[in-house]
Amino acid sequence: MGRWEPDSEDRFRAAAIELFREIGYERTTVAAIAQRAGLTPRTFFRYFADKREVLFNGSERLQEKMVAALAQAPAEASPVDAIAAALAKAGDFFDDERRPLARVRKSVIAANPDLYERELIKMATLSAALAHALRARGVDDSDASLVAEAGIAVFRVAFAQWVSDSERRGYVEIVNESLERLRLLTAR
Amino acid sequence: MGRWEPDSEDRFRAAAIELFREIGYERTTVAAIAQRAGLTPRTFFRYFADKREVLFNGSERLQEKMVAALAQAPAEASPVDAIAAALAKAGDFFDDERRPLARVRKSVIAANPDLYERELIKMATLSAALAHALRARGVDDSDASLVAEAGIAVFRVAFAQWVSDSERRGYVEIVNESLERLRLLTAR
Repeated sequence: MGRWEPDSEDRFRAAAIELFREIGYERTTVAAIAQRAGLTPRTFFRYFADKREVLFNGSERLQEKMVAALAQAPAEASPVDAIAAALAKAGDFFDDERRPLARVRKSVIAANPDLYERELIKMATLSAALAHALRARGVDDSDASLVAEAGIAVFRVAFAQWVSDSERRGYVEIVNESLERLRLLTAR
Repeated sequence: MGRWEPDSEDRFRAAAIELFREIGYERTTVAAIAQRAGLTPRTFFRYFADKREVLFNGSERLQEKMVAALAQAPAEASPVDAIAAALAKAGDFFDDERRPLARVRKSVIAANPDLYERELIKMATLSAALAHALRARGVDDSDASLVAEAGIAVFRVAFAQWVSDSERRGYVEIVNESLERLRLLTAR
């Protein structure tokens, strides 16, 4: 217990999500999370500032990876194709193993206004980062904002579909289909 | 002073925005707003629950009008054309007389995280209401979410452009152009 283990972060996250589901977010303490994970609270705080961070600490890495994918898209890629590369990259985080956690996370966030606000801020920050990365590719200022915001629109809808109860398709398939659908719906 | 006047709400709003600009949002009190407006605090509370509401109490009416415009779009209008009608309807609120207030409001919100969160929640609520209204027109569930979110993307970008310092074009012109631009950018 308490010694460094390569998967401690994942163990804390899985334990926290279990407890959030079983007894609710509000009633879950860091001590209980640590006990469930078979680790110490001291180790918990090496990974997370507080229990809220269990739900959000992946979002910075997600944003970095998405921005990097956008920056690395071929120079000739259109702004929308560059955003498509960023959206697909998020699939590295949203695999089938993560889906049960993501489903619990969704209901925890839906039930807690503070967490919902945090989630909205996270999305707004991601949108701004993607717009910034598009501008760095030479995309016009307001085109960059438009394409980034539209990309976030696709991301929200695809992610909601991916975590919905009956959904079995993978995130990447869903997000590509959502983007294609937006293209069709906006076509003249 | 204090007697009912048809434009009291607008007078409070103008006075509040002046004070927010002059001494900042945090330092502005309801008493000071009332004094500046030449009205009483008691009358203030007939219109607004608190000073924050001065910045947000128009958003419910805005949402109602946008949803009504969407619902009243011709039956043969595509989902995107129905959203376009809702976006244009917001122009009733964003006229040139309102623009100086909207500019101050923008900087007040940008400087106050709580207000910024409130603004994000307002946008998420508007998106959900527009998606709901699209479903009522028979639009498929996830198409409705996609088109509503994309509409909000256009709305955010157009509104930001409308309140930017050097902009002189009207909101309706800008929002129509932004939507057209999104159509072009997403076209194959």
